[in-house]
Amino acid sequence: MSEVIQKTKLAKQAASTLNSLTTAQKDEALLITAEALIANSDVIIAANEEDLVRGRENGTSSSLLDRLALNHDRIRSIAEGLQQIVELPDPVGDILEQMDRPNGLHIVKRRVPLGVIGIIYEARPNVTVDAVGLCLKTGNSVVLRGGSSALSSNRKIVEIIHDALATTSIPSHAVQLIEDPNRSSVDEMLKLNGLLDVVIPRGGSSLIQNVVQNATVPVIETGAGICHTFIDESADLEMSTAIAINAKVQRPSVCNSMETLLVHETFAASHLNEIAQSFREAGVELRGCAKTKEIVEWALLASDEDYATEYNDYILNIKVVHDMDEAMAHIARFGTKHSECIVTENRSHAERFQQEVDAAAVYHNASTRFTDGFEFGFGAEIGISTQKLHARGPMGLPALTSSKYIIDGHGQIRQ
Amino acid sequence: MSEVIQKTKLAKQAASTLNSLTTAQKDEALLITAEALIANSDVIIAANEEDLVRGRENGTSSSLLDRLALNHDRIRSIAEGLQQIVELPDPVGDILEQMDRPNGLHIVKRRVPLGVIGIIYEARPNVTVDAVGLCLKTGNSVVLRGGSSALSSNRKIVEIIHDALATTSIPSHAVQLIEDPNRSSVDEMLKLNGLLDVVIPRGGSSLIQNVVQNATVPVIETGAGICHTFIDESADLEMSTAIAINAKVQRPSVCNSMETLLVHETFAASHLNEIAQSFREAGVELRGCAKTKEIVEWALLASDEDYATEYNDYILNIKVVHDMDEAMAHIARFGTKHSECIVTENRSHAERFQQEVDAAAVYHNASTRFTDGFEFGFGAEIGISTQKLHARGPMGLPALTSSKYIIDGHGQIRQ
Repeated sequence: MSEVIQKTKLAKQAASTLNSLTTAQKDEALLITAEALIANSDVIIAANEEDLVRGRENGTSSSLLDRLALNHDRIRSIAEGLQQIVELPDPVGDILEQMDRPNGLHIVKRRVPLGVIGIIYEARPNVTVDAVGLCLKTGNSVVLRGGSSALSSNRKIVEIIHDALATTSIPSHAVQLIEDPNRSSVDEMLKLNGLLDVVIPRGGSSLIQNVVQNATVPVIETGAGICHTFIDESADLEMSTAIAINAKVQRPSVCNSMETLLVHETFAASHLNEIAQSFREAGVELRGCAKTKEIVEWALLASDEDYATEYNDYILNIKVVHDMDEAMAHIARFGTKHSECIVTENRSHAERFQQEVDAAAVYHNASTRFTDGFEFGFGAEIGISTQKLHARGPMGLPALTSSKYIIDGHGQIRQ
Repeated sequence: MSEVIQKTKLAKQAASTLNSLTTAQKDEALLITAEALIANSDVIIAANEEDLVRGRENGTSSSLLDRLALNHDRIRSIAEGLQQIVELPDPVGDILEQMDRPNGLHIVKRRVPLGVIGIIYEARPNVTVDAVGLCLKTGNSVVLRGGSSALSSNRKIVEIIHDALATTSIPSHAVQLIEDPNRSSVDEMLKLNGLLDVVIPRGGSSLIQNVVQNATVPVIETGAGICHTFIDESADLEMSTAIAINAKVQRPSVCNSMETLLVHETFAASHLNEIAQSFREAGVELRGCAKTKEIVEWALLASDEDYATEYNDYILNIKVVHDMDEAMAHIARFGTKHSECIVTENRSHAERFQQEVDAAAVYHNASTRFTDGFEFGFGAEIGISTQKLHARGPMGLPALTSSKYIIDGHGQIRQ
C-alpha cells in the first residue's frame, strides 16, 4: 500500500472519532498543540535550518527563502494563530434548517464535518499549522502534502503535533503528512474518491490548475485574482486615487490586489495623468491601451496577454473605456471572478455594476484588498474561493463543513 | 467551433440577461412555456413516435420504451410540473448574511444564479422540461445533453420552448440542446471550465461515474443509493417489518430504496424468520450471510459483491450483526452515503447511530424512502446529492444558486 493510501486510511479512521468530539475537547487539544510548538521552537528551527541550507544549495531565491524561514517570533505567531482558532465558534452541530412534516416526521439539517480534507500547498511551513488548526476545529482529519522545500520543517512540526495530540482526545492519526516529494503523490491524492472528501490547493496558479485539471475528488478552488477597479465618470478624484493606489500597492503580491484599472474616458481626460503620476511615485510600471498612451505618454502599451496576467507585482494595466458597459465587458472577459470594484458617485451605476459583474466580491467605493476572511470578520481564512459551488469568496470555518439530515419518526412509511 | 462550444457560449450570453430578471418575469415565461407545451402536444407526440419507432427497431426493452413514451396525459403532467415550479419562492436575491464592519464597510452576502448549468441525462424526455423549469426559475441558463434515444422528442420540446420564450423576457438562448449523439459531445461538456459553471448528471451509475471521473468542471453528484435499514435489539417487530418492507418494495427502482437489511442477532433469533416470510410474500429474493441462512434456510448466500450492489429490484441482502457497531461498520464499508435507517426503541442508540453514520439522511424509525425533495417539503427536486460539497441530500431550488458578496463603502482603503 502506498504512503498516500495508508496515511489517508488512517486519517479516515480518525475522522469518525473526531466527528463525535465536543468543542471543548477539540479546543483543549489545539491549545496543547500550540504550547507544544512554542516549547519545541528550537528543534523546529533546527529542522527549518536543514531546509534553508538545502534551499541555498539549490539556488532558491532570497524571497522564497525568507518565506520558508522560521524563527522564535514566527513560531510564536504561528502558535497564536492556533489559539485564535480556539476562540472562534465551532460550526459543527449547528442546526441549519428544521422541518416538521404533516406525516409527523421531524427533520433537522445539521452541520457536520466534511471528513478528510487534503491540503496541497507550497513552501511556507506556517500553512501546515494553520491547516491543522482549521481542520481539527471543524472536526475534520487532514492529509497534508506540502512542498518538498519545506519537508524537514513540516516533518518536525507534524511530529510535535502528533506527540501533543497523543495526550488529548483528538487521535494523532487525524493529522497526516505525505512525505513523498514526487509529483506522483499529489496525483494519487487527487484520485482518492471515497477516502478524501475534498482537496484544497493553496499556492500559485500552476499548482491550482494541476489540481483542478486532474482531481476526481471534489476541489475547492482558491486563489487566482485578476481584479479590476473601474473609475466611473462621476467618481471623486481623491477617493478614486486613494482606492486605486491602495488596491495596487498596499500589498501587490496577494490575490485581492488590483491588476487592471479601467477609467471612464471623460474622467480619464481630466484626471488620468494625475493618477498615473501617483502610481509612478509609488514605483508602479504602467501598461495602457492606446487611449491611455495619448494621455500618459510614458506608459508602455498593454497587450491582451497583459490584461490576462496576474502580476502580483508593481505593474498595472490601464484601459480607458467609453462607458460602464465596456468596463463590465472587459471584466467579463479577463476577470477571474474574484474581486471587482466600481468607484462612482452614481448610485444606480453602482447597483447595476454590483448586480451584473460576476465575481465573489463586488465593491462600491472601497479597495478590493478587503476580500479576506479576517477583514470580513470571520476570524479565520481557509482561502478565497473563486468557484461558485459550496463556498464563494473568503472562506471561514463553515466552508470546512457539510450537512446531514437527521430524521426522527415513529414508524412512518411512504404511501 | 463545435456545437457544444457554440451553444454553451450562447447560453452564457443569455445568463447575464437572466441574472437581472425579476421573479415575475421568470414566472410569466415559465407559464407561457407550460401552455405552449400543452398546446403543441400533438407535434410532441408525433416526434416522440419517431423515437419509439427507432427504439423498437433497435430492440429497446419495453420498460425503457414505456419511460420514453409521451401521451397527452404525460405532457399535461410535465407542463403542470412547470406550473408548480412557478409557485415556489425564488431563492435568487435572498440575503444570506449581512455584516457592518468597524471600518464602516457594509457587506451583504446575496444568493445569485450559478450561471450556466449542464445537465447530462438519459432517456426520459420529462427531464428536459423539468431541468429547464428548475434552471430558469433560478436564473440559470441550461445546456441539455439528453440520451440519443429521445433526441426527436427533446428536439421538438426545445423548439417549442424556444418559440415560447421568444415572446417573454427570458432569451431563447438560455435553453440549449446538444444534438450530437456521440459520446464525445459529453466529454467536451465535461471540460468546459469557464463556460459551464456546473454539470449535473441524472441517470444510471455508469453515466454518473463517467461524469465524476472525467469532468474538470465542478459536478454535483447525484443518485447512487445502497441504503441500509438496521433493526436493533430493542426494535418493535411490527414497526420494523413495516419499515423494512416499505423501504424495499414500495418502489424498488429508486435510489432511496433499501438494498441491505442489517438485523441484531438477538432480534434475528426471535423474529428474522417471520420478517423473511413477509419479504417472500412480497416477491423479494433474499441473499443472506451464514447466520441468516441458519435462520432462513431458503435464502441464497450473499457475497461481498452483493453487499456492494445497488439492485434497484426485488432482491434484498440480509446480514445478522452482533451489535450496532458491526452494523455501522458494514454501512461505512458498503454504503454510498445516501440514506440509512435504524429501527430501535433505544433513544441513545438512535442518537449515536444518527451522529456517527456518515450519510446525507439518517433515519430513526422511518423508511428511507422519504429522502426526496417533495417529501422534505422543498416543492421541487433537482436530484439527491450524495456528495458533501455544496449540497447534500435532496436538492431544492437553492442548490442551483451560488452567492456573491456585495460591499458598499465610502472610500475605505486597507491599512
